[in-house]
Amino acid sequence: MTVHPPKNINIVPFVSVDNMMKLVLSIGIETFLSELAGFIEEDFRRWELFDKTPRVASHSAEGVIELMPTSDGEIYGFKYVNGHPKNTRTGLQTVTGIGMLSNVENGYPVLLSEMTILTALRTAATSALAAKYLAPEGADCMAIIGNGAQAEFQAMAFKSLLNVTRLRLYDIDPAATDKCARNLEGQGFDISRCTSAEAAVEGAHIITTVTADKQYATILTDNMVGSGIHINAVGGDCPGKTELHPDILLRSDIFVEYPPQTRIEGEIQQLSKDHPVTELWRVISGELAGRRDAGQTTLFDSVGFATEDFSALRYIRSKLPGTVYFDQLDMLADPDDPRDLFGMLRRAKDVA
Amino acid sequence: MTVHPPKNINIVPFVSVDNMMKLVLSIGIETFLSELAGFIEEDFRRWELFDKTPRVASHSAEGVIELMPTSDGEIYGFKYVNGHPKNTRTGLQTVTGIGMLSNVENGYPVLLSEMTILTALRTAATSALAAKYLAPEGADCMAIIGNGAQAEFQAMAFKSLLNVTRLRLYDIDPAATDKCARNLEGQGFDISRCTSAEAAVEGAHIITTVTADKQYATILTDNMVGSGIHINAVGGDCPGKTELHPDILLRSDIFVEYPPQTRIEGEIQQLSKDHPVTELWRVISGELAGRRDAGQTTLFDSVGFATEDFSALRYIRSKLPGTVYFDQLDMLADPDDPRDLFGMLRRAKDVA
Repeated sequence: MTVHPPKNINIVPFVSVDNMMKLVLSIGIETFLSELAGFIEEDFRRWELFDKTPRVASHSAEGVIELMPTSDGEIYGFKYVNGHPKNTRTGLQTVTGIGMLSNVENGYPVLLSEMTILTALRTAATSALAAKYLAPEGADCMAIIGNGAQAEFQAMAFKSLLNVTRLRLYDIDPAATDKCARNLEGQGFDISRCTSAEAAVEGAHIITTVTADKQYATILTDNMVGSGIHINAVGGDCPGKTELHPDILLRSDIFVEYPPQTRIEGEIQQLSKDHPVTELWRVISGELAGRRDAGQTTLFDSVGFATEDFSALRYIRSKLPGTVYFDQLDMLADPDDPRDLFGMLRRAKDVA
Repeated sequence: MTVHPPKNINIVPFVSVDNMMKLVLSIGIETFLSELAGFIEEDFRRWELFDKTPRVASHSAEGVIELMPTSDGEIYGFKYVNGHPKNTRTGLQTVTGIGMLSNVENGYPVLLSEMTILTALRTAATSALAAKYLAPEGADCMAIIGNGAQAEFQAMAFKSLLNVTRLRLYDIDPAATDKCARNLEGQGFDISRCTSAEAAVEGAHIITTVTADKQYATILTDNMVGSGIHINAVGGDCPGKTELHPDILLRSDIFVEYPPQTRIEGEIQQLSKDHPVTELWRVISGELAGRRDAGQTTLFDSVGFATEDFSALRYIRSKLPGTVYFDQLDMLADPDDPRDLFGMLRRAKDVA
């Protein structure tokens, strides 16, 4: 990957929410998810290259604000992201995000992008990518427990990457299921609305749990999960918040992004610190096996990792040239003489 | 400090480089520096309130990229900043910065701003603020060793806060001194261009060292610094990079921003880990003495801390209402139903 700084290095391309939506729609949601999964897969294959700084969290009573940096040695990226479960009660998003890429060689930013929509897309693409290696052969039926903001993205990614076409939806709030089913109309799914989590998992080859609120701590109990199932555990993801009963974890082969982070934030926070887990990148790179047999219960304990955001930003950057889906932000001071920052400031008077 | 989320919470005010310059000039550089120092002083007084996360650095052969977060419990802020000493050789800034403030209660950003110019201003304001408590009584003559991008900002801040009107400039490159002197013409200074660091410090009450390049490691030696002087050591600021001979440090009373960071990055990295230092906030809050007598040598070992960026962003935010010096960025997804992110995306098709 070679970095070509733009001629106007003080100008940083910015992808607004509106432009992100237009970019996604111009590419097509399924194509976008599939191409994005390709970028994520490529970066998982070169996992060892990445500077995997732990995320930096600032906790408050209401939620958490995090910075997630990483670098492949040529490009540096970070995401600002918040998690505020109570936000939906006041009409706000639980999670919002903003991301940036920079050139490692000179530290100059090269992309700023909204990442609220992009995070939902990269989370779904990562889930489907993991399932490509872990779900049972021919899996085409998925239960989605939790039908909030991320549910449809999960459905679309699994359709795009695995050809999952049968969905079994359940949410504690039937209005959420209605919203999800309505949004997925005309996308080629056979959709069943279920009245309980137990009903939703019946006949499903893949179970996706994507709930948000801390108070419903056990979405799946052991008796609900048959053998051979792949579980895609997306929700939870902070200390004290889990979705699965520990008995399910104990009889599953568990795949994770980055163990030091997942042991704190993921479902496996319920297990001993040395419980064996497999790093997803080792499966994707072909070093270790994913699913070995039809009877195996596999679990992707997804928490979201900085490299996935990096891949997503890198994908967006690759799609911008030749489009109109970005603005030019005058973000970096660029005096004619780099030592003359003050002179640039004073001379601004003349043009002000 | 009460947080009032804007009505259009998806829109984040953005201060571009051009708008920052216009804002500074509309306020006046000296007034700006004095008001900014007031915000920094106010935050130093409530130092213990702040979440003082260490900065997160990503090092490469060419430089460093850092994220500097902090929070006062109501507002969260962070700065993205790079440090690439070789950048000037290709016409780029050594340091560029971008900052953001968010609402802790819901995690939503409330300000995005350029911070290349703002960092130079906040560094100078902090230096002058420290000198207000540490410089000898009546100090009006300052040596500035290193006449690069930050030198004039330092001069203006010391004029604004301490009424320093006599400057003694020295840089290893006479062209830098010429640039600095030219930029400060008409600002009410009596300026002497000096041909050596030794000449520059003669008669100065305050010595500001603000050099950038790693290879000139000892700007000041012990015999150059008379008693009663205040040293404002601004340059250096990374492991392996210092400006002062350790003998100067050993006979100075040393004041620092945040010891865990300064012991790694500052001049005091040359001293033992338990060498006594005084935290500047304890002086500003009145808990400990600053300068005690006329013969004392004081040293502000400035490295720049996240709270100062926070104060600077908070100051900028306070000055924006009623001005035209910001743009409105469509940065946060804001669906009518917070759970309907996908529906918002699909419906964007209709308006695209």
